Amino acid sequence: MIIVMKKNATEEQTENVIKWIESVGYKTHLSPGVEQTIIGAVGDNRGKEHLKFVESLSGVEKTIPILKPYKLASREVKEGNTVIRAGNIEIGGPEFIVIAGPCSIESAEQMMESAFIVKKGGANIIRGGAFKPRTSPYSFQGMEEEGLKLLRRAGDKTGMPIITEVLNTSDVDLVEEYTDILQIGARNVQNFALLKKVGKAKKPVLLKRGMMTTIEELLMSAEYILSSGNDDVILCERGIRTFETATRNTLDLSAVPVLNELTHLPVIVDPSHAAGHWKYILPLTKGALAVGADGVMIEVHPEPEKAVSDGMQSLKPERFYDLMEEIRKLEKLIRTEMKVTA
Amino acid sequence: MIIVMKKNATEEQTENVIKWIESVGYKTHLSPGVEQTIIGAVGDNRGKEHLKFVESLSGVEKTIPILKPYKLASREVKEGNTVIRAGNIEIGGPEFIVIAGPCSIESAEQMMESAFIVKKGGANIIRGGAFKPRTSPYSFQGMEEEGLKLLRRAGDKTGMPIITEVLNTSDVDLVEEYTDILQIGARNVQNFALLKKVGKAKKPVLLKRGMMTTIEELLMSAEYILSSGNDDVILCERGIRTFETATRNTLDLSAVPVLNELTHLPVIVDPSHAAGHWKYILPLTKGALAVGADGVMIEVHPEPEKAVSDGMQSLKPERFYDLMEEIRKLEKLIRTEMKVTA
Amino acid sequence: MIIVMKKNATEEQTENVIKWIESVGYKTHLSPGVEQTIIGAVGDNRGKEHLKFVESLSGVEKTIPILKPYKLASREVKEGNTVIRAGNIEIGGPEFIVIAGPCSIESAEQMMESAFIVKKGGANIIRGGAFKPRTSPYSFQGMEEEGLKLLRRAGDKTGMPIITEVLNTSDVDLVEEYTDILQIGARNVQNFALLKKVGKAKKPVLLKRGMMTTIEELLMSAEYILSSGNDDVILCERGIRTFETATRNTLDLSAVPVLNELTHLPVIVDPSHAAGHWKYILPLTKGALAVGADGVMIEVHPEPEKAVSDGMQSLKPERFYDLMEEIRKLEKLIRTEMKVTA
Amino acid sequence: MIIVMKKNATEEQTENVIKWIESVGYKTHLSPGVEQTIIGAVGDNRGKEHLKFVESLSGVEKTIPILKPYKLASREVKEGNTVIRAGNIEIGGPEFIVIAGPCSIESAEQMMESAFIVKKGGANIIRGGAFKPRTSPYSFQGMEEEGLKLLRRAGDKTGMPIITEVLNTSDVDLVEEYTDILQIGARNVQNFALLKKVGKAKKPVLLKRGMMTTIEELLMSAEYILSSGNDDVILCERGIRTFETATRNTLDLSAVPVLNELTHLPVIVDPSHAAGHWKYILPLTKGALAVGADGVMIEVHPEPEKAVSDGMQSLKPERFYDLMEEIRKLEKLIRTEMKVTA
Repeated sequence: MIIVMKKNATEEQTENVIKWIESVGYKTHLSPGVEQTIIGAVGDNRGKEHLKFVESLSGVEKTIPILKPYKLASREVKEGNTVIRAGNIEIGGPEFIVIAGPCSIESAEQMMESAFIVKKGGANIIRGGAFKPRTSPYSFQGMEEEGLKLLRRAGDKTGMPIITEVLNTSDVDLVEEYTDILQIGARNVQNFALLKKVGKAKKPVLLKRGMMTTIEELLMSAEYILSSGNDDVILCERGIRTFETATRNTLDLSAVPVLNELTHLPVIVDPSHAAGHWKYILPLTKGALAVGADGVMIEVHPEPEKAVSDGMQSLKPERFYDLMEEIRKLEKLIRTEMKVTA
Repeated sequence: MIIVMKKNATEEQTENVIKWIESVGYKTHLSPGVEQTIIGAVGDNRGKEHLKFVESLSGVEKTIPILKPYKLASREVKEGNTVIRAGNIEIGGPEFIVIAGPCSIESAEQMMESAFIVKKGGANIIRGGAFKPRTSPYSFQGMEEEGLKLLRRAGDKTGMPIITEVLNTSDVDLVEEYTDILQIGARNVQNFALLKKVGKAKKPVLLKRGMMTTIEELLMSAEYILSSGNDDVILCERGIRTFETATRNTLDLSAVPVLNELTHLPVIVDPSHAAGHWKYILPLTKGALAVGADGVMIEVHPEPEKAVSDGMQSLKPERFYDLMEEIRKLEKLIRTEMKVTA
Repeated sequence: MIIVMKKNATEEQTENVIKWIESVGYKTHLSPGVEQTIIGAVGDNRGKEHLKFVESLSGVEKTIPILKPYKLASREVKEGNTVIRAGNIEIGGPEFIVIAGPCSIESAEQMMESAFIVKKGGANIIRGGAFKPRTSPYSFQGMEEEGLKLLRRAGDKTGMPIITEVLNTSDVDLVEEYTDILQIGARNVQNFALLKKVGKAKKPVLLKRGMMTTIEELLMSAEYILSSGNDDVILCERGIRTFETATRNTLDLSAVPVLNELTHLPVIVDPSHAAGHWKYILPLTKGALAVGADGVMIEVHPEPEKAVSDGMQSLKPERFYDLMEEIRKLEKLIRTEMKVTA
Repeated sequence: MIIVMKKNATEEQTENVIKWIESVGYKTHLSPGVEQTIIGAVGDNRGKEHLKFVESLSGVEKTIPILKPYKLASREVKEGNTVIRAGNIEIGGPEFIVIAGPCSIESAEQMMESAFIVKKGGANIIRGGAFKPRTSPYSFQGMEEEGLKLLRRAGDKTGMPIITEVLNTSDVDLVEEYTDILQIGARNVQNFALLKKVGKAKKPVLLKRGMMTTIEELLMSAEYILSSGNDDVILCERGIRTFETATRNTLDLSAVPVLNELTHLPVIVDPSHAAGHWKYILPLTKGALAVGADGVMIEVHPEPEKAVSDGMQSLKPERFYDLMEEIRKLEKLIRTEMKVTA
């Protein structure tokens, strides 16, 4: 940590600050500047909480942390990219992974029909929600275990891996029994009890960035899972909340190259929740592929106009088939013929 | 819901839209405008999810919801203000309630000493964290049940009610056993499983606004608790995330008069977490009182420079006593002698 | 405009509201709902400022505007896309336009060298700043007219059109004399005096979105230029200000398909100012092309480490050549072989 | 500036960085840490633009600026507070200054009537807009010089100082002739040409924070005026743009104690534009006083329902009189009897 002294700080104040820093277990390093003196506090992270309090000593202007707060998620601890397996699929490898399916699992027919649409389009993984986090307590809350069974059956029939969201620590074991990938939703990105719990699961975890979460905080949440013992974390950008209301959230596609630089974990993009409208899904999926994402998660529904949730952002089967065709062409050029960006 | 047709929508498109709306169980009401036709969909909320899909029919420009999505939290269902009791204290009544104490419970001595400082200053409720939601998995995570016992003892010795945060559905029963008020933190404001669980508790709940939660979403989260059977919800503004970094978050004091207009629930303010620095706590506490808040929650520590968390934003005992003196003077003028604002 | 009455509004209040609306020159249309009555105010825009005041009458809950506030920029007034010519270049046509060059014009050599790098890379238009809007009064403010002359010469020598920013109404005539396209920067997007002035110029205007400008406000600013008589407006997304600090601003690539839907004007993207670092320019330029932008504006400098401004976000010549090669390949697939998205 | 090397940086890379820094005119100071080496670049601001480019050298992780970018606005250059005179009024002294009047000057009668309401209520300065910055080119743009004359007359008749906004460099001389204080609006906070021009005026300048402007940027804009020769700058917080839409903007009352700490310039608050609705003006004005602002600027109109702009946020005369009565009582307690906060 760097401690910046005020311009008019006295020598006595500077000495006091140095004494104090050393009393909490750090070495110090003094850099007198033209206008302001700077003190480096050198040491590992023990006592970090205390160290910050140096800001309240006389003569101190501010403190600046230097070390990145995450470790296991960082490129510094691992060469190469993490590739995560779910069934016969690899996420983070050369292929651009498409996860598709309905927002909510609504019935045996709807789920099975969706799964075959997803398969026909050439996607890689089936999604479907059995536990639904809804802003309103009066909205449909999901089919729960019954839904998990329907999703499992759809995965088995199509031979495709499945992914579904878990909301509550007490449901993690149940959900893990059925699914191939556990999903943590945007609203639970800092539900630390839940992160620790899925950190002990044996299945990969897809962790969505919250709409209020910085990239650094997202990596800290991944660190909760990694440090609990689960190495298989997939990050997902799904839009952040800004002042702009033309789209439901603002898809932060720059986060993809930034994450590709900072972490070895795979990064996918969810344009459906970010945009909130099906008409923007095709251009944003192309955009996700172009900026270097490892895949996308999109909503597809056999009859969006009858969906119990998020109908507006779900693609009809025909639109989904068209999207897949364009994406696979683009994938060939971008991920095979060009050198990978970032 | 209002459906706005495009300027160039044909009569046939308008008729189709009307037919469709009626097919999902609503009556319609047509308003031809100078430039654009508007259709009102009249009915209760059944089928709401489907209704929104009308946006994807030909000729429709957009839909606009009319009904507020919350009910029990709304002023429309209750005259007067909700006053919530915890021990001998009333929150939402004439008195300006001060909740004070350390961020984390660290030891028997620290907790007991803090409690007597809080009492001496003239505050009303003691706070202290036993389960700590920390961005980093490597930070101190709280003393858990041992901490709850220390806090309970501090409350009993001082004769003051206590409040503490609960993070996980599986801890709610345990925490409820010890505390007088359950706190839901900003990061759990849309942890719906947790909201439902504390909605079944017999103790009041203090619900913090998330740093990216709109006022309407905060009221929807309160609605989860209220609709699960718990009438005693206290709302807490604690700063929202914006582009400004001079303070940790941006305290949204305007939210207080807005909430006072929309809901009968009491509203308090947490300037400590919003500002992130003790030096701004006094002016912001005065500000909270002046804009019409029912109280504040502030961090006080016997020796902030030794705190295991949030030392920078904790007040020393002397500064806390000075604050309490000024606040009680201001309270007299604002809440007794002046007519209540809003 | 739609007027929503409160749930408990009396018939008398509703009648008063109707009377009042009619008194300011609108017809009314009454829609009684199950819970709330809705009144449509039908008329053109005369008296709009007054009409909004209906919100303060007893019994009114809120008002909702229906008409879009912009006209000339809207797709509703024009079929097809606006294609803008500058020299032999068309912006908004089939080609993906690359505008490139240094942030600031610094010397005759630097400008001429930059121009030939831009030409060699295969870009379409040369950029260079002669009047620089700098946050600090102590930073380099630009070479002014001397810089304009150097840029003009660079355009003439390479046979390429040029673009440069104008900051002040009193410089518009001067800048117009030298440049092929006038640029309005992000900080002047609501400098209405300047918008009106360039609205009277005979050269096209590239209008940058401000970092806190909504898409609707950007279109309103374009409307100032269009309604002053200049039909040739190019819109430019350059990043919005959010809570995320990993990139300088957050590039809102979703704005591209949204604008393509709302307006006939061409849309380009400036990844250099959004990202603030050269290492993200390649993936973000690919992203801009993939989501449907008509072009990009990027910073290139013969020796970025010696640039007087924005060196960190400028590409070196070799990186620029590599970028152009990849972009032209991608352009062929996306803009020629695939059907255009949107 | 602090340069942080990567964890795995080689000694050779570190030496290169040092060499480079010294080549652009700085001394260096090396601090080897446990995990990362830190280099201090010591020197004045010459070459600052170049120095930042060190970030692109091999082995560098990031750079951190240390010096505050503003000087004349800083408390470091001046002891005590700047008190600004306009007529017989002092802004920044013990009195809480109330600036009041209509948004737009609409007619001789409306302006004169407003002025006498403002005087009767006991406010200190009269406001009124003659040049109006409107989002839409189709909205009323102000009475221009005719309006300035009406405002001047209103000031003379009531014996009160006046303030009005100037939008364009070419109008500054004209506006200065009539007004006692020049106002720079939120949308022009980074219109640097305009800042330089009013920096040469002989009248005080009230500078509004933009809705996108950080506190540091606001101080940099003040620095433009101060460094052009005008010492009399009043800062004005008027709400920033956030995701919350319950109020038009989010009034950042924390900015007041932050500015009181950083600068000697007086700080006032405009709750009318921030909230966008008259019903929140009373609590927010009390809040502004309580957090330590030197005054407020509020909109008052004889008949808000007939105002040509911003009617919704203007106070009726009776509400204004009530507000003034409460504020003056609170002012006595807060600014006279209590010690000043901050």
